[in-house]
Amino acid sequence: MALVVQKYGGTSVGSVERIQHVARRVKKYRDAGNEIVVVVSAMSGETNRLIGMAKSISGSPSAREMDVLVSTGEQVTIALLCMALHELGCEARSYTGPQVDILTDSAHSKARIMNIDQARVRADIEAGRIVVVAGFQGVDEYGDITTLGRGGSDTTAVAMAAALKADECQIFTDVDGVYTTDPRIESKARKLDQITFEEMLEMASLGSKVLQIRAVEFAGKFNVPLRVLSSFAEEGDGTLITFEGKGVEAAKIAGIAFNRDEAKLTVRGVPDQPGVAYKILGPISDANIEVDMIVQNIAHDNTANFTFTIHRTEYVKAKQILQNVAEALQAQEVLGDEKIVKISLVGVGMRSHAGIASRMFAALSKEGINIQMISTSEIKISVVVDEKYLELGVRTLHEAFELDT
Amino acid sequence: MALVVQKYGGTSVGSVERIQHVARRVKKYRDAGNEIVVVVSAMSGETNRLIGMAKSISGSPSAREMDVLVSTGEQVTIALLCMALHELGCEARSYTGPQVDILTDSAHSKARIMNIDQARVRADIEAGRIVVVAGFQGVDEYGDITTLGRGGSDTTAVAMAAALKADECQIFTDVDGVYTTDPRIESKARKLDQITFEEMLEMASLGSKVLQIRAVEFAGKFNVPLRVLSSFAEEGDGTLITFEGKGVEAAKIAGIAFNRDEAKLTVRGVPDQPGVAYKILGPISDANIEVDMIVQNIAHDNTANFTFTIHRTEYVKAKQILQNVAEALQAQEVLGDEKIVKISLVGVGMRSHAGIASRMFAALSKEGINIQMISTSEIKISVVVDEKYLELGVRTLHEAFELDT
Repeated sequence: MALVVQKYGGTSVGSVERIQHVARRVKKYRDAGNEIVVVVSAMSGETNRLIGMAKSISGSPSAREMDVLVSTGEQVTIALLCMALHELGCEARSYTGPQVDILTDSAHSKARIMNIDQARVRADIEAGRIVVVAGFQGVDEYGDITTLGRGGSDTTAVAMAAALKADECQIFTDVDGVYTTDPRIESKARKLDQITFEEMLEMASLGSKVLQIRAVEFAGKFNVPLRVLSSFAEEGDGTLITFEGKGVEAAKIAGIAFNRDEAKLTVRGVPDQPGVAYKILGPISDANIEVDMIVQNIAHDNTANFTFTIHRTEYVKAKQILQNVAEALQAQEVLGDEKIVKISLVGVGMRSHAGIASRMFAALSKEGINIQMISTSEIKISVVVDEKYLELGVRTLHEAFELDT
Repeated sequence: MALVVQKYGGTSVGSVERIQHVARRVKKYRDAGNEIVVVVSAMSGETNRLIGMAKSISGSPSAREMDVLVSTGEQVTIALLCMALHELGCEARSYTGPQVDILTDSAHSKARIMNIDQARVRADIEAGRIVVVAGFQGVDEYGDITTLGRGGSDTTAVAMAAALKADECQIFTDVDGVYTTDPRIESKARKLDQITFEEMLEMASLGSKVLQIRAVEFAGKFNVPLRVLSSFAEEGDGTLITFEGKGVEAAKIAGIAFNRDEAKLTVRGVPDQPGVAYKILGPISDANIEVDMIVQNIAHDNTANFTFTIHRTEYVKAKQILQNVAEALQAQEVLGDEKIVKISLVGVGMRSHAGIASRMFAALSKEGINIQMISTSEIKISVVVDEKYLELGVRTLHEAFELDT
């Protein structure tokens, strides 16, 4: 008998009918001989409805009270799912985050889980019950309700699985697994049976938004086997996210990720001296603008060019900040481009296999795609190109690395 | 500086605009130098929306899960009210029932409050904050969420006031106080500045549905001064509910209550022997039908006639049950009348003043109103009359006892 934690997201529980569908899924796994803990999100639309009411009262509502407000969303789902399970003859019991002591820090709306008291859940499992837990929420040391931020239900599920030493944590989504790239871009994209945690981290942060990145980190840290499955398809084993080297000969390249919504900013001709990077990025970070790639290289006249990418929606704001910074630094000018995309090759295999980068650049060059920026990590190579090359670039690389077979 | 617990019901917080209105009211009392704890209900309509979803999943949803579900209603209100108070520059903090340890028994959907830990609320008050508490809900000794049943927010407010030894508990409703009778029936009805707890109990149970009866009992038990006010009118001191004899010369008669929706059933010719009342009322009670007045008198032939009143909606069901009972008891017949009303004179003064009953009967008789049943308690005389006499009866008594002056 295996202990499985299953997580169903907002779309999967978006109506009474879908909640009943989830109940049937849960029962099926249960009837197959598993012990089940279910983590659920708020019904899709509910969180936005609640936020809408708050925003009509206050432009900047208190983070503490927002958490009190939005945490009701999952609480509604856990109760309804238990009722649906009861109707199918399953014994089930619901718990809010505070009720099972999902202890977090006090960072309202983006709290981090510190501990889970699994005694109560364990007792229910041993009594033969299905346990239904509200995702996304917890309680801090003062007894205040906290939330983990959007998508945090994935993290709840992984944390529950870690606390209970579950055999598997199954994340049900609207896709049936992790693909070599987005099937809407490359029809030959192939579902991966498994992928390593590190690859998954790179894939997730680069735009294949299947799982919340913090959940994947968490799973890696606590050695929780994670599986992504479709909550709509009746069949299929999804994609298992594995620990590297666990008897698996890792494929060289796992897949191709991309991000459409990037913009690029360059400060040209900054003095090549210590502290410049901080002077440029400090004000950007103070304005809560997240920076993605950062590239700096020396120009010919003892000055450097400093380039970074950000989310496209922050472009205007970031450019304004940079104009002031450039003046203070006596830089030559600020250049920008908001029509760029990032394409990344991801795979643990590239660590031990030389020539991946050159093969990537050759393939893009052959199609006449100009590379504007390059950034590499141990298991990832990212390039920035003109946004018009997104589809062509992804397909070219998918074929060059034979990902369809 | 007075410590005041205020309770606003579902209609008073029925929309974002009304919540903002309540926030202004609270601020006004606060600015007048009071320390304030606010208890709120769910936004009107919200509880029914939640129940509707549950009913579409299950005909008889688990009581435990229903409480998890419907308790989200007040949780939404407390968060929104705090946000509205913050916008007005007031420091405020919200708490769910479980967060302030409103400990109840485990009778889901009709739990009774056993204890309130007021330490946390007290600390906030001392720090200068307005405290906003979710009404209607609590937590049992196992950490499960409970609710007090519909209207239970009144009880929460009174219990909070008792625990905090508040100077006053103010219940804001859609009326501006307690009247000598329903102003829609008798335009000369007068708002009472004060009324005793006992009178209030009789008035509430008899149809002047201003306050939840359990809340009034609770207030009496813990000596909490209770005041009913309008949440819509800007002015007025409402009606203070007092302890009898607290320096106040109680008026003889407080008011006239009535109940339109009664029906009457009589089992005629039952053997006049012990156990008959139980044999008749046992099956009625087993069918969860609530009985109001009960009158029994001896008939001429060693048999008795047994009459009781019930809510009109239960008439058909109750009559069917009685047919079987009558047969088993060898009673003569079952008679019924679903066109009756009950009119009651309420006042602590009638204890010490003789002649109230005869004055009441005389006034009714003078108008040709036939009395079908009579029932009395220490501070109440109730009569059952044909429903066509409701308005005439109320007005006649209002005038006979000079309640308009």
